[in-house]
Formats: sequence, C-alpha cells, structure tokens
Amino acid sequence: MPLKYAIGVDFGTESGRAVLVEVATGRELATAVFPYRNGVIDGRLPAPDEDVRLGPDWALQDPLDYIRTFQNTVPNVLSQSGIDRADVVGVGIDFTACTMLPTTADGTPLCTLPEFRREPHAWVKLWKHHAAQPEADRINDVARRRGEAWLPRYGGKISSEWFFSKTLQILEEAPPIYRAADRLIEAADWVVWRLTGVETRNSCTAGYKAIWSKREGFPASEYFAELDRGLASVVDEKMSREVVPIGTRAGTLTAEAAQWTGLRPGTAVAVANVDAHVSVPASTVTEPGRMVAVMGTSTCHLVLGDRPAVVEGMCGVVEDGIIPGRFGFEAGQSGVGDIFAWFVDNAVPPEYHAMAARDGRDVHAVLEREAARLRPGESGLVALDWWNGNRSILVDVDLTGVLVGATLATRAPDIYRALIEATAFGTRVIVEAFEHAGMGIEEVVACGGLPERNPLLMQIYADVTGREFKVAASAQTPALGSAMFGAVAAGAREGGYDTILEATERMARLKTDSYRPNLANRAVYDDLYAEYVALHDYFGRGQNDVLKSLKGIRARALAGPALEAADPATEVAAS
Amino acid sequence: MPLKYAIGVDFGTESGRAVLVEVATGRELATAVFPYRNGVIDGRLPAPDEDVRLGPDWALQDPLDYIRTFQNTVPNVLSQSGIDRADVVGVGIDFTACTMLPTTADGTPLCTLPEFRREPHAWVKLWKHHAAQPEADRINDVARRRGEAWLPRYGGKISSEWFFSKTLQILEEAPPIYRAADRLIEAADWVVWRLTGVETRNSCTAGYKAIWSKREGFPASEYFAELDRGLASVVDEKMSREVVPIGTRAGTLTAEAAQWTGLRPGTAVAVANVDAHVSVPASTVTEPGRMVAVMGTSTCHLVLGDRPAVVEGMCGVVEDGIIPGRFGFEAGQSGVGDIFAWFVDNAVPPEYHAMAARDGRDVHAVLEREAARLRPGESGLVALDWWNGNRSILVDVDLTGVLVGATLATRAPDIYRALIEATAFGTRVIVEAFEHAGMGIEEVVACGGLPERNPLLMQIYADVTGREFKVAASAQTPALGSAMFGAVAAGAREGGYDTILEATERMARLKTDSYRPNLANRAVYDDLYAEYVALHDYFGRGQNDVLKSLKGIRARALAGPALEAADPATEVAAS
Repeated sequence: MPLKYAIGVDFGTESGRAVLVEVATGRELATAVFPYRNGVIDGRLPAPDEDVRLGPDWALQDPLDYIRTFQNTVPNVLSQSGIDRADVVGVGIDFTACTMLPTTADGTPLCTLPEFRREPHAWVKLWKHHAAQPEADRINDVARRRGEAWLPRYGGKISSEWFFSKTLQILEEAPPIYRAADRLIEAADWVVWRLTGVETRNSCTAGYKAIWSKREGFPASEYFAELDRGLASVVDEKMSREVVPIGTRAGTLTAEAAQWTGLRPGTAVAVANVDAHVSVPASTVTEPGRMVAVMGTSTCHLVLGDRPAVVEGMCGVVEDGIIPGRFGFEAGQSGVGDIFAWFVDNAVPPEYHAMAARDGRDVHAVLEREAARLRPGESGLVALDWWNGNRSILVDVDLTGVLVGATLATRAPDIYRALIEATAFGTRVIVEAFEHAGMGIEEVVACGGLPERNPLLMQIYADVTGREFKVAASAQTPALGSAMFGAVAAGAREGGYDTILEATERMARLKTDSYRPNLANRAVYDDLYAEYVALHDYFGRGQNDVLKSLKGIRARALAGPALEAADPATEVAAS
Repeated sequence: MPLKYAIGVDFGTESGRAVLVEVATGRELATAVFPYRNGVIDGRLPAPDEDVRLGPDWALQDPLDYIRTFQNTVPNVLSQSGIDRADVVGVGIDFTACTMLPTTADGTPLCTLPEFRREPHAWVKLWKHHAAQPEADRINDVARRRGEAWLPRYGGKISSEWFFSKTLQILEEAPPIYRAADRLIEAADWVVWRLTGVETRNSCTAGYKAIWSKREGFPASEYFAELDRGLASVVDEKMSREVVPIGTRAGTLTAEAAQWTGLRPGTAVAVANVDAHVSVPASTVTEPGRMVAVMGTSTCHLVLGDRPAVVEGMCGVVEDGIIPGRFGFEAGQSGVGDIFAWFVDNAVPPEYHAMAARDGRDVHAVLEREAARLRPGESGLVALDWWNGNRSILVDVDLTGVLVGATLATRAPDIYRALIEATAFGTRVIVEAFEHAGMGIEEVVACGGLPERNPLLMQIYADVTGREFKVAASAQTPALGSAMFGAVAAGAREGGYDTILEATERMARLKTDSYRPNLANRAVYDDLYAEYVALHDYFGRGQNDVLKSLKGIRARALAGPALEAADPATEVAAS
C-alpha cells in the first residue's frame, strides 16, 4: 500500500502555512508559507478604499487572503513533495482565535459585497482587534451582576478579543452590518465551510472564545438581551447551537476547493481548530499531568483534565476543547518573548549590538551567552514579568513590569537573565495554581518559537519550576497538529487514524534532548521565587495598587492641557 | 588702595585646583588645575613599588601630589592674572574628607620614608577607601551597645569612610605603622600644616568625620579601648583635643611654602575645610532656612541651624562645622549623577547614541531633550533612586534600585526622566525630614556639576519639592569658598574680611535665573511622590526586605562552588 499523507494548514497573523505530513510517521515532507496580501489591516482599509481610516486598536483581515493561502500553499507542498495527490487522505486547519467575520447565509463575507466593502465592520476582526474593550467591560459587568455560572470558567473575565465582545461592537456601531449578517462565524469555521460547503462550529473556538460549554450550551437569551435587546437571539439567528467536537470530520473537499488546492474532490476535512490548542497532540500530549507551553511572544499553557475544575486565573476550561473526551484547561502569560524583544530594542547599550555584529549573531544570542555565565542569584535582581499585563493568574491587563535590585554594577546580561527568570517564575505560579486545583503537573512540553532558540531559557524554566522541560520535535506544531486532525478526519479506513490518540502515538514526537532541573540551581531559585511571590502578591493583589495608580496618573497627564511646562526654559524666572 | 586677592585651593579626587579671586567682588580671575600624578591608587602602589597589590575596596593617594598641586597651580594663577603677589592677602584650602594619613611628629608622611614606602597602610587613605567596613561595623556595634550619646548625631551610623574606621584598620592590619605614626591627620589639616608649619585640626572634618563635638569633644577613652585596647589613647597620642573653628587663621606661609606657591611669606592661611561644606557660603548661604545642595555624582545637602536637633538619617550635625556659631547639618543622597551615568552607559540603546553623534551632543543632552517632551506622569514609571544605596534618610548601603511601571511601550527617555524624578523625590524626603525636625527649608541653592548642565533636572526638582531652586553663580564653589575663608584668615586689617558673613555678602553670588515650582506639575508630582513614599517605606523600612535578601542570595551565589550548571548544555539529558 502506498504511503498516505495529510495536510495541515495553519492560519497565522501575518501569513498562512501548509505542511504535508506522512501519516504513518509524522514526517514533514514539505512546507509552504503564503504572506497575506493585505496582512493585518490596522490603519486604513486596503486599496481602493484606503481613504477609510480605522480607529485605534482596530485590527482586521481580508478573508480572501485565507482562500489565497489554500491556492498558494497546498499546490506548492504537493509539487515540492512530488507525491500523488490521491495519497493525501485528509486536511486539517487551525487558526488564530477569536478571529471572526459576518457573512451572508451562503457564507459570502459581507466585506466582499460592493455595498459593504467600505464598512470596516464588514471585514474580518482579527484576534488582536482590541477596540471592543467597552463591550467586554459590559459583558463582564452584566455577567457579574447576574452571577452567571459560566464566568468562573474564564477566570472571571471575558476578553475584549473574544466573540461576543466583537459581535456586540458590530451591533452597536454598525447596526446595518449586524442586520445584514446572516451568519457570524469564526474564520476557522468559515474556511472549513469554504472547503467543504458545510457550515460547522468547532468545540474549541466555541468553548474558549464564545462562552459555550458541552453541558450548558451558550449563555441564556436573557443574558444577551440584558447586554442589548438586539442581541437576544444572536445564537439562534446568526450562529448555531450545534457545536461539533474537534476530531470530527466536517465534510469533504468540494470541487471548487479541490481546484484551489490541487487535491482530489472528496478528500476528508477536519473541523477547525485553534493554533495553540492543536499544538497539544502535536507535542505528544493527550493525557492529564503533562502541560504544554506554547512559547513565543506570549505563552499559552494547556493542560488536560478528567473533570471540570476551577484553576485560579485560567483563561478557559472547555470539555472537548483540545482532545475529545477531556477537559482542556488554558492559562497564559501575556508577555514573554515580547519582553525580551522590548529589552533588546530599548535597553541594551551599543557594546552588545557591536558584539553581535562582530560575532555574526543576533543580540539575543549574545545576551544569552553572557547571561549564561552568571550563576542563579548572581544578578541580584528579581523582576515581575508584567510588561504586557498579567493574564494568568491575576487576569489584569493594567499590571506593569517591575525591576528590583539594580545597582551601579548591574549590566545588561544581568537584566536579561532576570527577565527570563521572571517569566519562569510566572510559569511556576501557573503550574502551582493547577496543582492547587488538584491537577498535578509532572512535566512540561514546550513548543513554539522560543524553545528552539534559547537553551538557557529552557534550563532556567526547568530549574525554576522543578519540572523536566521537553521540547516538541516539530518546529511547526500547529500545522502538524492540523495534519494529524486531517488524518483523523479521514479515519483508518481511508488510510488515516480513527482517533487523535492513535494519530498522536504515530505522528507526534519530542526532541531527544530535554532540560532537567539542576538541584543546586533549584534551591537558589526557591529563594528567589519566594521573593517573586511576595512582590507578585504585593503589587498584584491590591496591597499596593501603585501599578494602576501610575496608569491613572499617566492617563490624566495625557488628557491634560497641551504641554508647556515641561520645557524647562519657560519656568526659569529672574530671581 | 590696590585691589586685594585671595586664593582658594580645592583638593579633589583626581586633581587639585587653584582659583584666584578678587576680594572685593568675588570675581574669579584665574583658575589652574593639576591632575595628580598618581591619581587614585587602587590597584597597586606607584612605581617603583608596583609589585605591591592593594586589596579590594582600597583607595589611596600620594601626599606629594598635594604639594605638587601648590607648586603647579598657585604660580599658574598668579601668572595668568598678572597681579602682584603682594596683593594676595590670604589662602584657603578645602579637601575631600575623610582623607587621612599617618605622619611622623614633624608631619613627614610615613609613605615617604624608605622603610614604609612599600606598606599600603603608610599612604593616604582617600575618602572612598571602603576597605574598613568591618571596622566601621564594630565601631557601630560597640557604640550601640554602650548607648553612646554621639551616635544619633550621625544618623545612628558611622561610615567606613570616616576617620576612626580607617584608623582602626591601620591599627589592626599594620600595627607597626600605627606605632610609627606620631600623628594621624586629615589630609586637609596636613596641607595647612605644610603651608604654615602649624598643626591645626579644623572643626569641620573633626566634627563630620571624627566624632568630635564642640560641647562633648571626642568619644571617651573607654569607648576606644573597647574597640581595641591599643586605641584607648588615640586622640591624645596621635591627634589633638584642640579643634579650631573654621573661619580661623591657621598661620601664615612659611618661607618654603612661599617658594612653592610664589606667594609672599607671611600670607595668611585659613584652617582647612571640606569641599562640600565650604560651598555653603560660596552659594550665599550663611543662615538657616536655605538648603545648599551640592549636586554631582552624589548629592550633599547642607543646612544651617541655631540649635542642635536630630534629623532622621542625617550624616552629621556639627557646631561650627560650616559657619562659625551655627550648627551645620549634613544629609546626602549616595547616588544621583552616577545613576544617570550608569543608565547612559548600560541601558540606552544605540539609536540615542547615534542621535547624539549626529547632533554633536552627548547622550545625556539627547535624553534630556527627549525626556523634556514628556509631561509629568506620562512615563507611567516611578523609581527608587537607590542604585548606590541610601544615605539619608534610611542610612542603608544595602538598599538597591527599583523601577516600577514598565510596559512594552516604555522608552529610554521615560526611564531617564523617571530616574531624575526619583532623585528629586529622594531630595524631597530629606527636605521633609528637616521640616519634621522643625527646620523649615524655604529654598534650595544648588551648586556642583549637575545644575549647570541640566535645566530639566532643576525644574523637576523645583516641581517635586515645591521649592524654588537657585543656582550658585560660581562653577567652582569649593575653591571660591576656600578663597573666601582665605580672605577671612587675612582679616579686614590686611585687606580681607573679619567674618565669613561679610565675605559671603561681597564675594558670593547666585545666577540671575532660578527654577520656580510649576503648580500644575507639582500637583502631579504630589501624587507620584505619594507612590514613591509608599514604595520607599515598603522596601526601605523592613516591610519587605527583598533588597537585602537579593544581596544575600547574590553573595551566597558568588561564594558557591565553581559554575557549571549555568552552561545549559551540561544539563541537557537524553529523554
């Protein structure tokens, strides 16, 4: 029997990526990336409507870029690999989330219709569209007042990024668009609809982003009505109560989609998934006790459980959300790689840039090398890793970064190491929150961009948490995970697998090297962690609200009259 | 009658400086600087004894450099100005302190004798010789145990920099040097001895650095004996109980000193003074209510009072210590300009260095320009200015710097401004400590290197403290002040003045421009100051001893076994 293949397509923020994978082994034969033609739309609409400006915190996308992704990348991986398209048994996709759009009843995006093209609310709202904060605030206020039982499942707070925040913004700011939208849908589900002709709603985005649960369904109409009378029937009118567990076959490729992709019509297509969550089986994890950390600019922590639980500050818990039959818990650190990038861009003196240029390395690599020469505790520093707020466990975007212990002898590698350690302490707080909720974490499997490039960071994480850190073998776990779900959509009879557990067993691997805690380092880090926790609670739990006061003072300063007195010359007085 | 002149000689850390001043007006006619040939001796002794290495924290000087200063600078200013040497009525000197040395009975420095030349303890111990910390600790422990009444006059703590710390170190580490030292003397008094042939001990260094007071004298022999039996008679054997108020004539130039300087023998010489303290009259201040801030790498705050008082964390209070008949109070911030210098050297990215190069300015100037564009509060940051510990009011060298409020949008000018503001808050804490002790501070007169170059800093200080900041007209207040005391040593009959008050009236001036508080800025800074004080007390008064814990963790890390595990490669394990 010829070898069989599956294709995973990963829709990221700036580009889409297809990977062609051997079903029997998970071997990645070919990869192709398509940078979206219109990228992230955050200043003005694309030509010819570039005169339409977007507000602050807006972030849109062009849905046709997703179709272009299929058209470009899938034929590319087929041709690169030289395989017979008939041997591709299934396709899976994963997406950023919540990334959503309004469409007509047949799935036509409103922004592709001439009458709505110039209306920003007709476009795809990308995950990082943050303009719906007032709506999110109301969603939370009303939920708290009504004592909605679902609120604790989301750490007590719904994000401005999520589905109903964005939906409510459309309703309030663009009622004609809301009315014209027969469907409001995750882009993840929309692309599957485009591939198969079948509209499905996957349990992962519904659960993590649209307040759905397998047992309770969506929030009640009364709740939606209290937000806005027009929203009362949003689920029945524009969404669906039929939510399909991930791991299910959504349908098969239509003739049109077969033409886009070069695959044969009838190829199995999996229901959609989310990039972070689909990385879990791709990191070999299908059972409780092993945390997956998707580490990049931010870190997403995913843990499987056998029963519902409340973990302090978790982002969400969804039955069938990651692996069918399991409860998928999500937590997160909102700033990790982006803090290191901030540091390199804003606080590293020229000598290290010169060193990097001389050595032909990047500045991160030079700082890592220098920081690796320090012993744990030698920097004399401890930091709170809140440069971009705190997602778990404090769930507070208004928290900010703190650096403690600077002296005239402090050097850039000291601070760089302290920032790495701070993010490791943040991870330990999350690990301990899971354990406190009765969910033991035996080890961590890291995937994403950071683990590949930063052995010092990985060792520090192992030392700080006292857990072995393993690393997923694939550098593109989302696309691999999607291909795995594509193989499951095909099923064993068509040359795939019947369950994601079987697919994981055969297709997912770890790197052979891992990072084990060094006991001597761990003892030092236990001391430092105690200091971190004391500061974490002092600044983060209301003992001293200085971080918020500073944001308030800053906001008032910026709202004040035009600057004059900051020019010292104007205040010099003849004595 | 021809115009009369006075010469002030200021002995700094790296060089000595003479200024020739017109007695009637304070006009500075000529300046000359002599960089010490042997500079600060902190690694090994000068040739031919460079094989003798010094311990960590040692800092010595060569007393002959002081003589060379007279020989080089005084003839230079005489020749530059073209005046008749007969019209120079008096000479005054000021010095860093405590800078002290052991000599024979006739004032010969032990380090100039062949038998002691290679013995580090025979040399001048410079103010920043910090190797006597264990001795200082014992001085404080014994004083606290005995309840010595003088301890509160020094904020409860004697510094490792001071006279008896250094003396005790000589006794314990080099008993033969201690025995051979007929005299232990401040370099300030030693150079006056060299000029006049008369050994005097000035009230300023005795009071601030050697635990002397006009009413109580020195600590009791029993106290010294408890430190070390050999120290019991140190005052009577190697020092003097006759302490002369500053503003007194020490004597007149010997024939030899006249030859060094080119001045006429018999020229009046004032008793010695300390650089910071002599700046007070040179900044026009001779009365209570006006603080002098000598602002450079660190800041020294000097206030005059009518009666003794205990100001929290003051460095010292000395009757006759600054102006005869007044109590001179000293407080200080141990890190100011050096924090800004640290920041520029260690935390400013290349773009600002490039901007400075392009604009032909230094990086400080570029950062000041950018920081001036920010409104008070706009940075969102607040810092604790303890990069070099805290002198007043917490008197704790183990405190370290804290930066609070960083985000991914924080830029170098935000931090630069926050650091300036932090030092301003530190000054406000000191101003309020004086007021709390019943000593109102109406305005501040700044002198030293910082006020000249940093108008933004001066405005921020005015806004933060709510006080008008004036600036001394002279860029070299120590040398001017010394010249003023030289004129007083001469007396009115010889063409000088009879009192330092008269000399101040005529010879000292302020710049015409001053910095007045901007009320709108002050309101914002009141809010920020409240945050600063909360953090100051939290980190500085024992609520959270993390700053010290971090130093302890660091010390243990450095004392541990040789580094191995910090190399991540060694911890990677096959999984």
